[in-house]
Amino acid sequence: GAGSLALAGPHPGLTMSAQEVVAMRSQLHTVPKAKQAFDDLQVKTDTSIELGVIVPKPVDAGGGYTHEQHKRNYQLMLDAGLLYQLSGKKRYANYVRDVLLAYAELYPTLPLHPKQKEQSPGKLFWQSLNEAVWLVHTIQAYDLVVGALTEAERNLIESSLLRPVANFLSEGQPDTFNKIHNHGTWAAAAVGMTGYVLDDQHLVDQALFGLDKSGKAGFIAQIEQLFSPDGYYTEGPYYQRYALMPFVLFARAIEVNEPQRAIFEASDGAILKAIETAVQLSYNGLFFGINDAIKDKGIDTIELVHGIAIAFEVTGDTQLLDIAKQQNHILLTGYGFSVAKALHEGRDTPFDFRSLQLRDGQDGQQGALSIFRHGQGSKHQALVVKNTSQGMGHGHFDKLHWLYFDNGNEIISDYGAARFLNIEAKYGGHYLPENNAWAKQTVAHNTVVVDEQSHFNGDWRVGQQHAPNIRFFAAQDGIQITSAEIAAAYPTTTLRRTMAMLELEGLTHPLILDVFKVNSVRAHQYDLPLHYQGQLISHTLKLQGAKQALSPLGEQHGYQYLWDRARAAFPAGLAQLTWLNDGRFYTYSTVGGTDQQMLFAMLGANDPQFNLRDQHALIHRVNSAHDHVFVSVLETHGEYNGRAEYTVGAQSNVVGLAVRELDKYTEVTINLVNGHQATLLYTEQGDENTQHQLDSAGGQVQWQGHFVVLKSQSKQSEQ
Amino acid sequence: GAGSLALAGPHPGLTMSAQEVVAMRSQLHTVPKAKQAFDDLQVKTDTSIELGVIVPKPVDAGGGYTHEQHKRNYQLMLDAGLLYQLSGKKRYANYVRDVLLAYAELYPTLPLHPKQKEQSPGKLFWQSLNEAVWLVHTIQAYDLVVGALTEAERNLIESSLLRPVANFLSEGQPDTFNKIHNHGTWAAAAVGMTGYVLDDQHLVDQALFGLDKSGKAGFIAQIEQLFSPDGYYTEGPYYQRYALMPFVLFARAIEVNEPQRAIFEASDGAILKAIETAVQLSYNGLFFGINDAIKDKGIDTIELVHGIAIAFEVTGDTQLLDIAKQQNHILLTGYGFSVAKALHEGRDTPFDFRSLQLRDGQDGQQGALSIFRHGQGSKHQALVVKNTSQGMGHGHFDKLHWLYFDNGNEIISDYGAARFLNIEAKYGGHYLPENNAWAKQTVAHNTVVVDEQSHFNGDWRVGQQHAPNIRFFAAQDGIQITSAEIAAAYPTTTLRRTMAMLELEGLTHPLILDVFKVNSVRAHQYDLPLHYQGQLISHTLKLQGAKQALSPLGEQHGYQYLWDRARAAFPAGLAQLTWLNDGRFYTYSTVGGTDQQMLFAMLGANDPQFNLRDQHALIHRVNSAHDHVFVSVLETHGEYNGRAEYTVGAQSNVVGLAVRELDKYTEVTINLVNGHQATLLYTEQGDENTQHQLDSAGGQVQWQGHFVVLKSQSKQSEQ
Ligand SMILES: [Zn+2]
Ligand SMILES: [Zn+2]
Repeated sequence: GAGSLALAGPHPGLTMSAQEVVAMRSQLHTVPKAKQAFDDLQVKTDTSIELGVIVPKPVDAGGGYTHEQHKRNYQLMLDAGLLYQLSGKKRYANYVRDVLLAYAELYPTLPLHPKQKEQSPGKLFWQSLNEAVWLVHTIQAYDLVVGALTEAERNLIESSLLRPVANFLSEGQPDTFNKIHNHGTWAAAAVGMTGYVLDDQHLVDQALFGLDKSGKAGFIAQIEQLFSPDGYYTEGPYYQRYALMPFVLFARAIEVNEPQRAIFEASDGAILKAIETAVQLSYNGLFFGINDAIKDKGIDTIELVHGIAIAFEVTGDTQLLDIAKQQNHILLTGYGFSVAKALHEGRDTPFDFRSLQLRDGQDGQQGALSIFRHGQGSKHQALVVKNTSQGMGHGHFDKLHWLYFDNGNEIISDYGAARFLNIEAKYGGHYLPENNAWAKQTVAHNTVVVDEQSHFNGDWRVGQQHAPNIRFFAAQDGIQITSAEIAAAYPTTTLRRTMAMLELEGLTHPLILDVFKVNSVRAHQYDLPLHYQGQLISHTLKLQGAKQALSPLGEQHGYQYLWDRARAAFPAGLAQLTWLNDGRFYTYSTVGGTDQQMLFAMLGANDPQFNLRDQHALIHRVNSAHDHVFVSVLETHGEYNGRAEYTVGAQSNVVGLAVRELDKYTEVTINLVNGHQATLLYTEQGDENTQHQLDSAGGQVQWQGHFVVLKSQSKQSEQ
Repeated sequence: GAGSLALAGPHPGLTMSAQEVVAMRSQLHTVPKAKQAFDDLQVKTDTSIELGVIVPKPVDAGGGYTHEQHKRNYQLMLDAGLLYQLSGKKRYANYVRDVLLAYAELYPTLPLHPKQKEQSPGKLFWQSLNEAVWLVHTIQAYDLVVGALTEAERNLIESSLLRPVANFLSEGQPDTFNKIHNHGTWAAAAVGMTGYVLDDQHLVDQALFGLDKSGKAGFIAQIEQLFSPDGYYTEGPYYQRYALMPFVLFARAIEVNEPQRAIFEASDGAILKAIETAVQLSYNGLFFGINDAIKDKGIDTIELVHGIAIAFEVTGDTQLLDIAKQQNHILLTGYGFSVAKALHEGRDTPFDFRSLQLRDGQDGQQGALSIFRHGQGSKHQALVVKNTSQGMGHGHFDKLHWLYFDNGNEIISDYGAARFLNIEAKYGGHYLPENNAWAKQTVAHNTVVVDEQSHFNGDWRVGQQHAPNIRFFAAQDGIQITSAEIAAAYPTTTLRRTMAMLELEGLTHPLILDVFKVNSVRAHQYDLPLHYQGQLISHTLKLQGAKQALSPLGEQHGYQYLWDRARAAFPAGLAQLTWLNDGRFYTYSTVGGTDQQMLFAMLGANDPQFNLRDQHALIHRVNSAHDHVFVSVLETHGEYNGRAEYTVGAQSNVVGLAVRELDKYTEVTINLVNGHQATLLYTEQGDENTQHQLDSAGGQVQWQGHFVVLKSQSKQSEQ
């Protein structure tokens, strides 16, 4: 009841239950790190509370003072609410009450925000998205302190603040609320959570099933539609992480209030799958930097801290504790404490980073992201093949693009987003103009550019209508491989790429094999860039001298940002380039003809503001051809130890590479210095049950499915 | 006696005593890390021993097979010798014996090495330096196993191998042996250590006092002359580390055999001082990269592992254990075990990295390196001001140069050496041509270049004849400052620089203040480069557009390697440039007139082999002047946290900077945004006892010594 601690009552009962509070109060001291987090939170919150109640009239756009203050307020109310429950100290509840009363006085007077964004304006904030985030936090804070309020206070806060905000976010913006989109998820979460706290089933039902409660919109529909059947979010991991937050918080509230809905089992366990997939989309703690992505984001972001803890509460999967341990961030909620306690008890088991194919699209038919992994620790390699769909407005024009990670580092890279988040001096912290003009363009990626134009001519709405066809995917012992094609990136031109991670005897690390076929009805220039990270050590190309003046490589589609640093002709046979990164060598072996060049490009042309990072790229250029097959092998080898002054394995083991097309089959042969030879035979046709048969030098070969690897050792080496 | 373990006899008794062996045998199991190191060494050594005795006829130059095999042999003999003493297993002694007998058979047959270097050729190796290193190791191994040999074996090994090599290194190459140079130290150590083991006082005396035993040459003279009175080695820390090895090993042998010499007290404790100084010459574990230096070398190199352990054995200074802990390398010698044991007992105390002036030159009159430090951990800053002498052939043309370190990173940098050590593909692993042509040149440093020519016109033999005069040095609370000048770097031109680390109220980190005066009888172009590390975020200069083509900045003295990326005019008043490095902001504030430009340069022109690293530099250019005073302040500020998505303190606090020359005084005024003003008044004249008096805006100022700092707060800010 009002004025007394409501431990036994229905509050708190949103994302944290009264029983959890009781348990935490008695056990907090037994988990030193949680106790420390509690002490730290008190100190921090007390400092903020001393500044008093600050609820300014909304004036500023994102990043401005009033915007940031209203953000601080919701976090502070939530922290104070938790401290009230855990410590029983009334002053925390009083502070939350005072802030809420100030808002209850302010809110009814507010018109739309003066700096309103065109779509979905808010009142406290310039966009209603922020308003929804505010309510998701504030309603949790209210739930935590409501037991300490008088009936009059509750009536005032609910009728002048909480209900009006919830109504504004639902009936007040039907288009956004009913949208199958991240903004709609936040609105649904805010409204539904408010419904639970105010015991208003109408709000809950609208949140779950849309304004008309038909189920065509609302949270349940969003769970079904926003993630692919493999838990992949089409914009990529950077936005997947962000999109997860309202899902996991609202789902947790539903679980507490209506466990019979089994919300975590909905849509084949979509929410849990999306959480685990977000983790799988990382290497060495950082998300793969595909599409618009700030590359220092990773598994320790706050959204995944909540996500992992809530998932652990549901599943008890101790692999999630491995991730929580790396996050090293203790939440003082019930689920946060469960994690802290389990970690204190040493219950964590290694998270299983594994090879998998993540299908894209609601139906899983919009291409896929393939992740191939091998090894552990400094030998943990990951090959990421991006055969996904466009990924909406934050997507890049990078069909059939790939990335490679090794030894903790990104070796073959994606630029990610061109943005200095929250750095005012850099274009107000927004996406830089170079994000569209460079980072999204095809030449900024490791995939073919035809006639120096980006895929879909750089129009994402066109790109959105097409996705690659996945021909096959397999992750077996010894070979991991995938093949995909797309005919729509350029008119009358088909791009087909097969990439594999291949283990061979005598090599410390698997090879990365790449076969990229381009077929067109007309002759074109084909560029295949390779964005490598490291210091170039040596190469076998025929360099055409040092330039006395540098000029940009082109004028548009990203080429205007590349300096044309050097050009080289191909030697007969194998062409090799070796670079060094963090004490390890990487050799890219390829073959090229006399009609081809290797361009050494460097980022930074037309960049007077120094907005771009230093980067180097190789570009394998075919001057003019209808059809072309690019083939290459990337070898990871050796060690350079400057401290102890030794170098081993600086030479590549690859001494031969050839590709042949034999009717519907493709044959790639790799020769190693130790005499071993590997031949990959594959076809994009048929399926995994198709029987194949081919005559080769070594006799007749028969196999089932898309590919077979043949290995032999040369006579010379055996003797 | 022969055939029995010689624990109680005179062997081992070179760098390790029989008593130490007894103690280690009984205590090894009590120090888990030492036990682990022992087990690891056994496994490693057993594997090598299984390959048999391999003593090839010398054929190859450095890096080649026979060269590397003879290096492997001496390390393996030493390891096996240690294992014999610690385990008592006879097979280790037998293996050492067999290798020594093979050498005793080979050595008398050898002419000079077929790939002999012109100066000081060897027999086993192409240069006698390697032969001396071989003997320093081999004689230790012999000392460890001699007790297990028969008299016949001993006679053969001593008469056919050890004495001949010692004679070859002494009487056989009198010039090298008597040289006050690192090669002479190795030869002296080898010969002297052999003297101790063979009980040959003649060899010992020659090693200590030169071939004629006069004391003009030999180890004692080298101790006196190779290091400055502050323990600084003129070539810089990279070579200081290397030079230390024969000093510490031979000194240890002298201490064991002739403790009455008190060798570690010789020359005012020069050896211990040099060891400590080597550590002081580092930041975050890495040596300051001045002169020819591979920048990944640091305090964990093997030379310092021995040095620190031997110094700890002599002094018992527990601060040394802090360094040993960071080295994380356990030696299975007596002194190595002492360190392991002390660390196991947790006796380490923090090493005191402090501000100090390291005088250069035997007499301490050849300039100095000043190190100013502030703070701890991520707030540990180090300002290094290089007012040293040339430093011989490995020195750079960098008079009055500076470096700055913060937050674990090098912020204002020195390129170090242009070399990929041991990477065959990069010029055989030798110093690259770009080491002379770029890395040594003045423009590669943070100091003034006159008319695009390097100091001393790039002739190190001329540079060797001149050193800066240190005007003053002080490390006080609130301000650390040094001033130096040199008139010989350019004809009729004087360079005078005063640099300070200044703490001011309201700033999180001290400022770095720089006043660089150039005075010449003729008009010249003056360039002041700043080699910064990080991503440029913003600046207040007036950029003259983006270039459509890049060309090199010049044709010689290093300018040919710099692209002229952009040029900018100075604004009236303060000019500021801010960059970001590892989540922290750095703002360089300076002032420039209309006759001046700021050049944005980028390394990589004329580098078809990709031998140079990506680097950016600012160059403040004064087009033509007789006299000029450059003034600047570098502020460390704020935080960018991409993970948690916040940025604080991205703006510099410096809002004003001015320099005035008032007769013999220089006045620098710095204004902060918080209203605080600091005025530094200094003079290069007089000494620390001189009284000064000056009328200023705030009244008359009186002080003693070279400088005074006045602080005030503006009226506006107080109200
Ligand atoms: Zn991209
Ligand atoms: Zn240098």
